[in-house]
Amino acid sequence: MEKMIFFQVLVLCSQLVGLLGITLIGVWMGKYLGGFAWDGSDQQFNLHPLLMTVGLIFLYAEAMLVYRVFRNTTKIYIKCLHGMIHLLALICAVIGLKAVFDNHNFNGITNMYSLHSWIGITTVVLFSLQLLCGFVSFLVPGVSRTLRASYLPTHVFFGVFIFGMAVASALMGITEKLLFTLDNYSDLPAEARIANTAGICFLVFAGIIGYLVTRHDFKREEVDYEHEPLAMD
Amino acid sequence: MEKMIFFQVLVLCSQLVGLLGITLIGVWMGKYLGGFAWDGSDQQFNLHPLLMTVGLIFLYAEAMLVYRVFRNTTKIYIKCLHGMIHLLALICAVIGLKAVFDNHNFNGITNMYSLHSWIGITTVVLFSLQLLCGFVSFLVPGVSRTLRASYLPTHVFFGVFIFGMAVASALMGITEKLLFTLDNYSDLPAEARIANTAGICFLVFAGIIGYLVTRHDFKREEVDYEHEPLAMD
Repeated sequence: MEKMIFFQVLVLCSQLVGLLGITLIGVWMGKYLGGFAWDGSDQQFNLHPLLMTVGLIFLYAEAMLVYRVFRNTTKIYIKCLHGMIHLLALICAVIGLKAVFDNHNFNGITNMYSLHSWIGITTVVLFSLQLLCGFVSFLVPGVSRTLRASYLPTHVFFGVFIFGMAVASALMGITEKLLFTLDNYSDLPAEARIANTAGICFLVFAGIIGYLVTRHDFKREEVDYEHEPLAMD
Repeated sequence: MEKMIFFQVLVLCSQLVGLLGITLIGVWMGKYLGGFAWDGSDQQFNLHPLLMTVGLIFLYAEAMLVYRVFRNTTKIYIKCLHGMIHLLALICAVIGLKAVFDNHNFNGITNMYSLHSWIGITTVVLFSLQLLCGFVSFLVPGVSRTLRASYLPTHVFFGVFIFGMAVASALMGITEKLLFTLDNYSDLPAEARIANTAGICFLVFAGIIGYLVTRHDFKREEVDYEHEPLAMD
């Protein structure tokens, strides 16, 4: 039982540090960079960091966690929840991408040249493919259990790896934005401290989530009456 | 046996893409940013990206791989090799850090303000602690097997996580350096293409290495005559 208390404490810490990261991004964009709009302006750009981190960091992690948090719920419900949260994450990401492309086009800024953009777009594409493959393999009826079982470890590996890519993209994005907007980054004004701290929050969040979803000790125990024991732990 | 051929192909791919990434960093620093020196100048800075990526990305990965590549070698030798490669990685990292601090102090540039530096230094500190804990737990005689066994999963998790941090730090470092040195990054001159491609190489390298060292299928099988079956797989 002690193991499950440790698990719960880690889940709680992950939620606190993840939400702190998102809040700091919101404060950075909302208070220091002029707030939000949908008119092609820099206020539309500001939706990009917020929506990408809400979608591909926070919601992504929540979707991975559901298998281990709702340990006593029938697996088919958890599978659906896992898929739906990921779908919500994808919607956030698509709107977040639209925000930055609109803003670049509005201002005549070149799209897709930076390493952040190369890795970021790859992350979204891989995430979409992973969602599609997961849906076809684990939710569409008729797929053989052998096929599902053989795909599962690959699905789980790419799930964690793409999450890592999303966090790395966010850290590069924070770096880029600070260098573009601050002349005095090296003086560490409040804005820089807030953005750097958001980055640290996402890194710690990634660490705790990575531990929670890969640690064997925290695996969901299969319940006898379930006949679909193949989705993520 | 087919499984082991797949394993070997992946190992080969990892080496090629990893060495390509390091080579591109070398070309970027050597050809486009003035080469190398040890005099506080920007040529000393240039040793920083090269040594950090050689140490904390390439050698780090090699050290993790040895358990799975040398499957039939007695484990105590592999443990020593694992530790020695990590020690070499740490030496590279320390010289790489000295290079950037010397250069900053020489030019009156503030140290340790960027998110890259915050996460980078944390990576080196955690890497050093991990090396120390690994040495004390798995190489110093007299530590109980129960203690070793209970620490092993934590050692393995942090090993992979700190490696991920090193890759994220490198990607942020590449982003920073490009934005500091190029006025026309958005035109994607050769220098930018080389540096971006190095970043992509490190990401792909991280993906393959992550897969190789976490996939259960590739686990080393313990040999009967070994009495120390506790280090990484």
